[in-house]
Amino acid sequence: MLDAVERKIEQYIQDLNDPEITALYRALPAGKRLRAKLILKIAGNGLSAVKTAAIVEMIHAASLLHDDVIDDADTRRAKPSLNALYGNKTAIMLGDVLYSKGFFELNRLGVPIAQMISNAVTQLSLGELKDVSLSSRFNTDRDAYLHMIYQKTASLMEASAGAAALLAGKPADAYMTYGRNLGIAFQMIDDILDITSDSETLGKPALHDYEEGKTTLPYIYLHEALDKAGQERLRSLHGKRLTDEEQAWIKDEMKEHEIIQKSFLEAQELAEEAISLMDNEGERALSSIAMAMIERDF
Amino acid sequence: MLDAVERKIEQYIQDLNDPEITALYRALPAGKRLRAKLILKIAGNGLSAVKTAAIVEMIHAASLLHDDVIDDADTRRAKPSLNALYGNKTAIMLGDVLYSKGFFELNRLGVPIAQMISNAVTQLSLGELKDVSLSSRFNTDRDAYLHMIYQKTASLMEASAGAAALLAGKPADAYMTYGRNLGIAFQMIDDILDITSDSETLGKPALHDYEEGKTTLPYIYLHEALDKAGQERLRSLHGKRLTDEEQAWIKDEMKEHEIIQKSFLEAQELAEEAISLMDNEGERALSSIAMAMIERDF
Repeated sequence: MLDAVERKIEQYIQDLNDPEITALYRALPAGKRLRAKLILKIAGNGLSAVKTAAIVEMIHAASLLHDDVIDDADTRRAKPSLNALYGNKTAIMLGDVLYSKGFFELNRLGVPIAQMISNAVTQLSLGELKDVSLSSRFNTDRDAYLHMIYQKTASLMEASAGAAALLAGKPADAYMTYGRNLGIAFQMIDDILDITSDSETLGKPALHDYEEGKTTLPYIYLHEALDKAGQERLRSLHGKRLTDEEQAWIKDEMKEHEIIQKSFLEAQELAEEAISLMDNEGERALSSIAMAMIERDF
Repeated sequence: MLDAVERKIEQYIQDLNDPEITALYRALPAGKRLRAKLILKIAGNGLSAVKTAAIVEMIHAASLLHDDVIDDADTRRAKPSLNALYGNKTAIMLGDVLYSKGFFELNRLGVPIAQMISNAVTQLSLGELKDVSLSSRFNTDRDAYLHMIYQKTASLMEASAGAAALLAGKPADAYMTYGRNLGIAFQMIDDILDITSDSETLGKPALHDYEEGKTTLPYIYLHEALDKAGQERLRSLHGKRLTDEEQAWIKDEMKEHEIIQKSFLEAQELAEEAISLMDNEGERALSSIAMAMIERDF
């Protein structure tokens, strides 16, 4: 199924008739194509579904290119990132090419789908900006954090599921909630893994988020759980390079206050709502995706 | 007339409901709104024309934000650029927000207009990338240069004029040629001014393009006109900081070989074709815009 999506993306890239772009696109890792999978599972593999999936994956690739420039990321999916290989300029412009070609093709899919997906791109760009501004201080506002990850990570999954439901004549609301919950839970778990995994598994230093200034959900909960002195120590470590001893202290305190369990439970609840919505629709494959996400140990 | 466009843009920004974006947008210089003027002059000031003009100006602002990041520009319209004030991250993401909101609103204007404008965004992004890759060496390929400035500068003017003609039920081809010629001539003259103006007028060092590695039309023609030794000297100065003496040598050789006149003549011919097309359509205001562009001394 996904083969048809890959071929459609390649055709869209060929349309541009620019050998440099073709070569750059081929250098990008394909990724898991999670959004394309969702779309095909909801809407089947007719031409409109394949086109929607291809467009969403091009848009997602564009957002990752800009995200890597924003984060000064050297790697993406354990390979050197495009900005590291060819510079930020190339990454920004390849992103703009993929966005605009995606929007161009989107126009043919009708106004409701085109608006759903272009609105998601606005939301994810607003989310990226919010991620940067929240990282400039020790953010303790849980709602601001949750809204930011909804915008940054979940909005395009919500729109993917919603657009696919529109194509298939299924109830868009339930599918949008599914996509939104899946996206938020996915980001929460990603944030947890930054704390619980070792550097080798992550392909980046552990506690990288906190060193970058990002107070993800576990840090917000840890801050709430600590006493005054602990809070002050936690704040003093925010946004700086951590020694092994400082990393160990944070991890010990997280353990002591059962922060990872608490954070994971929240991701689990969102995933369970998603599962139950899809069970109601008889969508076994979709509930399995949500189930696989939370069936791991932390 | 333009007031209605400004109000529409403000409304689109307000829709996003994000105070940080509202503040950032207000910090951007408004610019000349040349594309909005073209659209209103062609299509009148009905709601669809105002919306199209607002969308095109948001898209143009987004492209300038990314362009300034690409060029490491410190200034834009003689004021500090947004990337210089708030960093590249903010400039990239504000650009993405303006692009995606523009595309979102574009969906309502119908497929032909939406595709015309989104295709122009692809072209201008391809043009920016080409500008970077052409600058990495001493480019002597005039056609490659002309295609690049068509993509980078003229494609959005071509699409603006074409979209406005569609709205007004006027012949799109003539108006697109007008917009394209105007855009290419505009960029040619901009490139000439980089050589003929002093640093104070430009708000950046003179011969900045050449120092950046850009062999604009006058450098391509100068290279053709010089003897072997002169060509070698010219190539040796490419892409590096120039001394006063080196700058003087380039300017003297340009004078000697009448390079500025030759380049300007080419811009003039494009503008004259544009004028004659609009005279045929009885579009006095549009031919005046093209005329004003070339009625200056070099």
